[in-house]
Amino acid sequence: MERTSPQGVNIKSQDKKDDFIAPTPHNTPIVTAPIHNRQHTSTTMAGSFTPNAQLVSDLQGKLGSLIGAPTGYIESLPASVQRRLDGLKCYQSEHAKLETEFHKEIFALEKKYLGLYKPLYEKRSQVVNGSLEPTDAEVEAGKKVDADSDDEAEEEPAAKTDDADSPVTGVPEFWLTCMKNHGQIDELISDRDQEALKHLTDITLEYLEDEHAFRLVFTFAPNEFFTNTKLTKTYFYQTNPSIGDIVFDHAEGDSINWNEGKDLTMAVESRKQRNKSTNETRVVKKNIPTESFFGFFDTIAIPEAPEEEDELDLLQDQIEADYEIGEEFKEKIIPHAVDWFTGKALEYEGLNYDDFEEDGEDFYGEESDDDDDDEPRSQQRAPECKQQ
Amino acid sequence: MERTSPQGVNIKSQDKKDDFIAPTPHNTPIVTAPIHNRQHTSTTMAGSFTPNAQLVSDLQGKLGSLIGAPTGYIESLPASVQRRLDGLKCYQSEHAKLETEFHKEIFALEKKYLGLYKPLYEKRSQVVNGSLEPTDAEVEAGKKVDADSDDEAEEEPAAKTDDADSPVTGVPEFWLTCMKNHGQIDELISDRDQEALKHLTDITLEYLEDEHAFRLVFTFAPNEFFTNTKLTKTYFYQTNPSIGDIVFDHAEGDSINWNEGKDLTMAVESRKQRNKSTNETRVVKKNIPTESFFGFFDTIAIPEAPEEEDELDLLQDQIEADYEIGEEFKEKIIPHAVDWFTGKALEYEGLNYDDFEEDGEDFYGEESDDDDDDEPRSQQRAPECKQQ
Repeated sequence: MERTSPQGVNIKSQDKKDDFIAPTPHNTPIVTAPIHNRQHTSTTMAGSFTPNAQLVSDLQGKLGSLIGAPTGYIESLPASVQRRLDGLKCYQSEHAKLETEFHKEIFALEKKYLGLYKPLYEKRSQVVNGSLEPTDAEVEAGKKVDADSDDEAEEEPAAKTDDADSPVTGVPEFWLTCMKNHGQIDELISDRDQEALKHLTDITLEYLEDEHAFRLVFTFAPNEFFTNTKLTKTYFYQTNPSIGDIVFDHAEGDSINWNEGKDLTMAVESRKQRNKSTNETRVVKKNIPTESFFGFFDTIAIPEAPEEEDELDLLQDQIEADYEIGEEFKEKIIPHAVDWFTGKALEYEGLNYDDFEEDGEDFYGEESDDDDDDEPRSQQRAPECKQQ
Repeated sequence: MERTSPQGVNIKSQDKKDDFIAPTPHNTPIVTAPIHNRQHTSTTMAGSFTPNAQLVSDLQGKLGSLIGAPTGYIESLPASVQRRLDGLKCYQSEHAKLETEFHKEIFALEKKYLGLYKPLYEKRSQVVNGSLEPTDAEVEAGKKVDADSDDEAEEEPAAKTDDADSPVTGVPEFWLTCMKNHGQIDELISDRDQEALKHLTDITLEYLEDEHAFRLVFTFAPNEFFTNTKLTKTYFYQTNPSIGDIVFDHAEGDSINWNEGKDLTMAVESRKQRNKSTNETRVVKKNIPTESFFGFFDTIAIPEAPEEEDELDLLQDQIEADYEIGEEFKEKIIPHAVDWFTGKALEYEGLNYDDFEEDGEDFYGEESDDDDDDEPRSQQRAPECKQQ
């Protein structure tokens, strides 16, 4: 078939419609991927991942005048066709207004259903934390759930550990176990973090009243690490009127009030120093940042001025990964916690533990060492002894 | 920290809750990825990608007894904790019922909004196919859309091709151009396909009345290739009651009534044969399957009996890719066609042309040759001459 020239040289319009060759931008791609997008799964109902306007603008700046620059192919079209395209753009903007309403209705539905789920979440929390025992009827119904999905009658396990002598309260380490069973989230949890996350008693979802945003609330029992009883992370959306979509804007996390020497996002580096005059040695301690799940509560700052290309790429990756983790809590861990605890979720999720490693990068945009075990990724010695 | 033994050896319950170490399946992963899932983006509102039950069962069969097999960690928990987990499963099944209702409401919302979008789609179709000219007011409004999004007043292009002498009908090759500007879809289009796709006059979305399914309808002007005026592809969902989700089940496409010698999914291979007695040569022609966009209308058959592991992987990849393409038409091309025509969609989509190539595989699960140009992927000579 005929091809148009890359710069959309004026084409001769011909009598027969079928012979008319519309210049197409695919012959002259403006840019293959204006914003690097790893295209991970998103089960978001009300929003999709798009970084905020400032960041997009910086990223576009970095790509110079390529993005959005006319390549001439539209201009090369006959006047009558351009006029029709303008008409189509008008219809598209009407469409975008309707789409915005659609997304608002979905968001409202999400809120409505959160309200319906809440009594179940509250019962779950009470059972997990030991203030409520399920009724016999509930237990029987719960046993049937597994029996149904296995397509066979559930066998009563032969022997259970009897804890009558030393009763266990609730379901210990429920939320830590849920998180550890989620590959992407497990990646973020250091051995030191686990000691703190044992005190996690609930993870809940809230929607903000007046703003288009959702908030994850992590509730902790009193612990030696920090004084906060709740740590929250809030994800804000904005409405993109030109495409009718609701897109992610930015996230804000709480600051953690670490107890002295307990900051899990910092590691202590000790070095010996010798005094040249006295020949005495002393140990100098220095705090250095280390990877920790609690970095999740850091607010990623978006710089005012455009930065270096590499830094922008890293920032983009960080924001995207951060948004994904928030989504995983919102759409998977919170709604289906017991299935994450038991591992059943792994069956129906088709969850890929290697998701981030596929990209050769971990959450922090650094090369992964393919280290799949639970060794701490920092060079710090685990504070407590380890039993294999 | 302490670790539990891989097979969830009975643990001693202790007096202090904090000392209790819950065995976690992450120490003994059942399987890292029960179903290979590339985790491409999905903007689906009402459904998520999960292949149908038979396929899952085959895939699980292939993984032997590993999936769903108890690793013993749940059984190792104290009886009181197991009882609580059964209670939690009961609440989870109540939650799943609500989720099913939620997904049904979203599906109903999608249908409602399709009804609202329809008048705009009909006008679009009329303008594209030349039976309606936009009003001056619509054209002015359309010009303003671009001016707004560019944050500057739209400059009137200096010179337009005047087609008063040889008027062009509608917007020629509108849908072909939209499709060519979408990286994943463009991958599927051979040069021969383009000749047929020039006759594509509309792509629309329908929901089935009684079933949980959506249908893509491709409308064609009379053409030399096939006699169908419409080609449809229908995606069926099923409700997964155990997780409350609506999941993709299978897709069905129309058969194409190809005109003699015009089947674009077949290529003719010519070979010379020499008769050993007479020493005469003759040309033998053979039809061999070739890659074509029109393969999209093939219904992927799911075999009754489990197949070889490699075949199942390939099948899984094909079904997933096929579903993704359907989703792209439903969620992107149809709602925002003019933006795909002009290339504006590339700006806000962050669309990655290399999506499939990242996996080192193309739509058909074969190794990609990283061939980014528009050369036909089949070995066939393009039927018409090519002008650069």
